[in-house]
Amino acid sequence: MTTTRAEPQPADFADVRTTNLAVVLRHLRANGPSSRAAIAASTGLTKATVSSLTGDLIGHRLLRETGLSGNRIGRPATVLALDGSAYASIGLQVAPDRLTALAVDYSGEQLLLWHRATVPAGPAPAEIVALAQRAASRVRQQGRHVLGLTLAVPGDLPGGPSGDELRDRVAGSLRQKDLVVTVAGHATLAAVAEQRRAGRSSLALVSGTAGLSAGLIIDGHPVRGGRLGHLALGPAGTPALGEQAGITPLIRRALSDVDPAAQADLAPAVEQVAIRARTGDRTTLAALRHTGGYLGQGLAALVNLVEPEVIVLGDHYATLAEWLIPVAADELARLTPAGDTPVVASALGLYAAALGGAVSHLDQVDTGRLPDNDR
Amino acid sequence: MTTTRAEPQPADFADVRTTNLAVVLRHLRANGPSSRAAIAASTGLTKATVSSLTGDLIGHRLLRETGLSGNRIGRPATVLALDGSAYASIGLQVAPDRLTALAVDYSGEQLLLWHRATVPAGPAPAEIVALAQRAASRVRQQGRHVLGLTLAVPGDLPGGPSGDELRDRVAGSLRQKDLVVTVAGHATLAAVAEQRRAGRSSLALVSGTAGLSAGLIIDGHPVRGGRLGHLALGPAGTPALGEQAGITPLIRRALSDVDPAAQADLAPAVEQVAIRARTGDRTTLAALRHTGGYLGQGLAALVNLVEPEVIVLGDHYATLAEWLIPVAADELARLTPAGDTPVVASALGLYAAALGGAVSHLDQVDTGRLPDNDR
Repeated sequence: MTTTRAEPQPADFADVRTTNLAVVLRHLRANGPSSRAAIAASTGLTKATVSSLTGDLIGHRLLRETGLSGNRIGRPATVLALDGSAYASIGLQVAPDRLTALAVDYSGEQLLLWHRATVPAGPAPAEIVALAQRAASRVRQQGRHVLGLTLAVPGDLPGGPSGDELRDRVAGSLRQKDLVVTVAGHATLAAVAEQRRAGRSSLALVSGTAGLSAGLIIDGHPVRGGRLGHLALGPAGTPALGEQAGITPLIRRALSDVDPAAQADLAPAVEQVAIRARTGDRTTLAALRHTGGYLGQGLAALVNLVEPEVIVLGDHYATLAEWLIPVAADELARLTPAGDTPVVASALGLYAAALGGAVSHLDQVDTGRLPDNDR
Repeated sequence: MTTTRAEPQPADFADVRTTNLAVVLRHLRANGPSSRAAIAASTGLTKATVSSLTGDLIGHRLLRETGLSGNRIGRPATVLALDGSAYASIGLQVAPDRLTALAVDYSGEQLLLWHRATVPAGPAPAEIVALAQRAASRVRQQGRHVLGLTLAVPGDLPGGPSGDELRDRVAGSLRQKDLVVTVAGHATLAAVAEQRRAGRSSLALVSGTAGLSAGLIIDGHPVRGGRLGHLALGPAGTPALGEQAGITPLIRRALSDVDPAAQADLAPAVEQVAIRARTGDRTTLAALRHTGGYLGQGLAALVNLVEPEVIVLGDHYATLAEWLIPVAADELARLTPAGDTPVVASALGLYAAALGGAVSHLDQVDTGRLPDNDR
């Protein structure tokens, strides 16, 4: 997902138009329905340019006229709004224990959210392809053109085909030439979803769905890496941070009396940890303090190295935020000079990566690259 | 130095021209003198556009005609080259023990390199201002217009005015309205200098001039942060990485028999460490192995979190690279999945930050924002 922006490319007038289409779309996404005059006043574009741009966007069914503004002095103006009805995109979250498909339309409304339990060995490529096909069919039946599909994969899903092979296989099965299929890591895509919600240009999202990972958005762009659980400092044999602050080791410490097979299904095991913590179980609370302390050291590493504006605890960490955040924030304050980077819990739940995968294609439209509608 | 690129700004035809001016300048910087036809063929711009753009650049004294190309079949063509003679910029490196001023012209040629020893308490603002004024005067006497001056400051220079106050004081003293004065950290500016030399869009430079810091360039842009020495993982009281892998602790371990006052002047002390290592001194070699191992763990943190294409050991680390790199590379391979990020020693010496500060203003010109030459 990361592209190189170091070398300028020759520009022409089409680039100016693309940029200005993006300005209009972002304005409407940020401010809601607006008149052409209001768009012009707020963006600095001329009224004639705004009329031409919005005409193009209406032609692409990305905007629609919603009636007249009545709350101003002077002649009522036609109000334009983002039109979600023509386009949609899909995120498909691949985890060791389940597949999740999520589709949203261009206005951001959720069209479907499906789960499939998989075989114990993890999802087979054929299952992933079948779910992608079914989700695309359903979205098309709803009258939406599918712009793209993103496979959200754990950084270290063992075995199976590599991400690129999986992407090619899914793309080949969907039989739609202009449907863009991409693949990216859970944590990065969850960070994309958070960025769209929070409007921050720089954030870190910490995910525990597959090891301990950070999705990093820096200056508005996702950055490769984020393998927070791999951090290790100390003599040879010192455990890596993932062993100290990961969700699986936390469950092992807190639910040491529970059958390991039951521990492997993370979501119910994490719920069990929360239930025990609420009852004041000492072993569980000690395990949460251990996890929170080391997590805070990991967050401090992120702040010291790349200075995100905010750190969001995602998925399973969000479920346990009330116990983890106070301890982690203390370590963060101790180990960073300013010490005041906010740590918050995500409100996007366990499928933020699927959502981020879906919205990343809508973000492409928001950069002014309009879908090809000659069909 | 980091700017937010998240929100598009309205574009107009001037932006197209700016971008295309940048394309021509970068082409000439990368490929050396070229004819207009060769520029057009290589960049994809039309010959008419190239003629107009190069005319503008000649008018700004950024290009000059250097004669006719004779080594091609067909009519000889006029060859254009970057002209370094009209513009220059200055980097001023502020360290606890000395000030360094360095100026380069637009073609990258070094115009001056001055050092000033400072009082033991560190450079006073008045000394910094005086050196800035003297450097600017000298460059102007050489017939160059000064585009900008950058103050390269350690991340944690104790006491004294903050970076922004220092910048305003220097800017006020130079009495030239279009001279841009900026301030940034040593490691970041050294990374800028390395990026210009190596042409990588993503790199990390490790500096030991003031603690242990990393200058990070990601997707072509400097990133805030890089406080590598602040990393700490472990129970409360565990020393931070700077205590294990920093230059000052290395000197303390290797030269434990030397007067602490003599250890404080880093460059000669590091030379002494290298001399002892060459003679096979066991204490020194053990200290270098300790430093190299922990440094490798810090480099692994950088690779796991932001995946630079290459890691460059700068300044004092470069002096000791033959002992540090083998140990650090082993740790890096052990702690990162791919394990193959190259680690190289910088060839830019102890004043790379001053160089990076100077060239950052030339980079601005290379983005197509031409200097105001109405003077």
